[in-house]
Amino acid sequence: MDLGEFELIGRITEKARDAGRSGADRFEIGSGDDAAVIRSHGRIVTSVDTAVAGVHFGTDRPPAEVARKAVACAVSDIAAMGVGPGATEMLVALGAPAETPDEYLEGLADGIVAAAEEFELDLAGGDVVAAPAVVISVTVIAHLDDETPLVARSGARPGDVVAVTGPVGGAAAGLALLGGLAVPDLSDLARDLLVTCQLRPQPQLTAAPVLAAAGAGAMIDVSDGLTADLGHIARCSGVDIRLDGTQVPIVPGVAEVADALGEAPLPFALSGGEDYVLALAIPPDRFADADTALIAATGFELLAIGSAEAAGRGDGAVVITAEDGGDALAPPGHDHFR
Amino acid sequence: MDLGEFELIGRITEKARDAGRSGADRFEIGSGDDAAVIRSHGRIVTSVDTAVAGVHFGTDRPPAEVARKAVACAVSDIAAMGVGPGATEMLVALGAPAETPDEYLEGLADGIVAAAEEFELDLAGGDVVAAPAVVISVTVIAHLDDETPLVARSGARPGDVVAVTGPVGGAAAGLALLGGLAVPDLSDLARDLLVTCQLRPQPQLTAAPVLAAAGAGAMIDVSDGLTADLGHIARCSGVDIRLDGTQVPIVPGVAEVADALGEAPLPFALSGGEDYVLALAIPPDRFADADTALIAATGFELLAIGSAEAAGRGDGAVVITAEDGGDALAPPGHDHFR
Repeated sequence: MDLGEFELIGRITEKARDAGRSGADRFEIGSGDDAAVIRSHGRIVTSVDTAVAGVHFGTDRPPAEVARKAVACAVSDIAAMGVGPGATEMLVALGAPAETPDEYLEGLADGIVAAAEEFELDLAGGDVVAAPAVVISVTVIAHLDDETPLVARSGARPGDVVAVTGPVGGAAAGLALLGGLAVPDLSDLARDLLVTCQLRPQPQLTAAPVLAAAGAGAMIDVSDGLTADLGHIARCSGVDIRLDGTQVPIVPGVAEVADALGEAPLPFALSGGEDYVLALAIPPDRFADADTALIAATGFELLAIGSAEAAGRGDGAVVITAEDGGDALAPPGHDHFR
Repeated sequence: MDLGEFELIGRITEKARDAGRSGADRFEIGSGDDAAVIRSHGRIVTSVDTAVAGVHFGTDRPPAEVARKAVACAVSDIAAMGVGPGATEMLVALGAPAETPDEYLEGLADGIVAAAEEFELDLAGGDVVAAPAVVISVTVIAHLDDETPLVARSGARPGDVVAVTGPVGGAAAGLALLGGLAVPDLSDLARDLLVTCQLRPQPQLTAAPVLAAAGAGAMIDVSDGLTADLGHIARCSGVDIRLDGTQVPIVPGVAEVADALGEAPLPFALSGGEDYVLALAIPPDRFADADTALIAATGFELLAIGSAEAAGRGDGAVVITAEDGGDALAPPGHDHFR
């Protein structure tokens, strides 16, 4: 690489400024000093997420796509709390091997700034270091007033409806296709959709505040796999969750991919991960209004897939009723180390 | 590693809670949810810093020491703005190879939490991923009211006194010693001091708010090397900085190490980096009071080493007057890629 550390930080900062994402209207001191100084509104919501080349993305993927997804995943974590777009900054820690071509680094910078525009983020800082692989760590900080409702994982109660904002399984199926899996029955359209699910996840920034305001009691973004993520809600809330397997929405084409892998579609879709739809528990008397509000805001229905129950099987079990009517304890979700 | 991702996050969260650093008194929702929700005081100061095994620290160093230094370096960035201890959280993104021993991961967790105690940080979140090397990325977020004075890099004015809060060169000399450099003249005490400068930097959290309140116009922490960091102030402020080389305080033992490397002590100390003392520019009529306040708070003097001048040599030059009275343009500072 010919771009040194300072130049790369400077390039990202410059691109962010050109795109109007340098926080000019909100920041007292912006990116480029030792730290940024930003006016707040009473509360912050903050999270960090990391993507590593060869682990979370292929080294052959376009760098702008890779960087956009890293930012999207971090944004999804604050959406899971009920945060919507605006008044949010990001800090990006970037590691790259010294031999990384300048065009790749420029591509990462472009992807970071494009994501800032897409998700309405302002760049508050960054750090560039040498590392054995490309590593992108994104911290997001949203500013909210004291009244905006937010949703933890811990508020599910027995009787709540469990629902999702969209279908699952697509990202895992897309990953299998990118890995070279041959699925002869799959149309080009279905293939493109699944690959897009994997490469361009859509954090639910529009849906999130609508669902928080509509009374969602617990919410999470589906990153580890729907079963695993509902397991987090179940454990944090002290409830069991019973899923009706016949009601779980699955992205078109997932069944064919699962079949090619010798797996059943439902377990494949439930354990896949990286769907980045929202999963939530909401009191039954709030469901209809939440559904109406979600349709008004996004055009999509809120999809009921199960219910929360008093804990009976132990510490926050997720029980899946399959199509044959039998029960099964959930398979474990995704663990980055295993 | 036998510890999975969730267990490691859980262990760090648990250790932070046991140490009273889980933000119980400040956080609405703490570490362990999708994101943390934290009450603010009007403004935040935020920065991110990353350390990579084999680049920033040796793979043979104790993990607790490595993690503490990674946190210390991030804290130093907010100290450079004038931030003192308290009402500050951190998020830690941790990458590690799948084969990392559990004891090493436990050591990282211990170091992170020990640093949280030492620097009064609350753990607001984290992320653990597989990576080809150990990577520790630390974001710090400090909450301040609207009145607390903060100091950018851009406020140096011609006539300002340029000063530092302590001696430089120690960390670079310590690194050379850790690398196996033989320096026969060096006492064990001097060697220990230099190695400690490298391994246990002290972010200036006590000095920082004192200097901001005393009227520092521009401030930076010395991470890239004193000349390079004063260059940042010079460029951001649109001034030149003239250093009196005879007044630059150098850690005892640095001269012997530089000599063993065939270098002169002053250029070695000025370009070394990782000293984490504060360098600042302050109007001359504020210097005496700042010095008095600093001594009262820390026991250490504010050390004048030069002055800011109207820009004459171009875009923010740092001119060093050496002992023989000659001028020299500054050597370039540390660049992580070069």
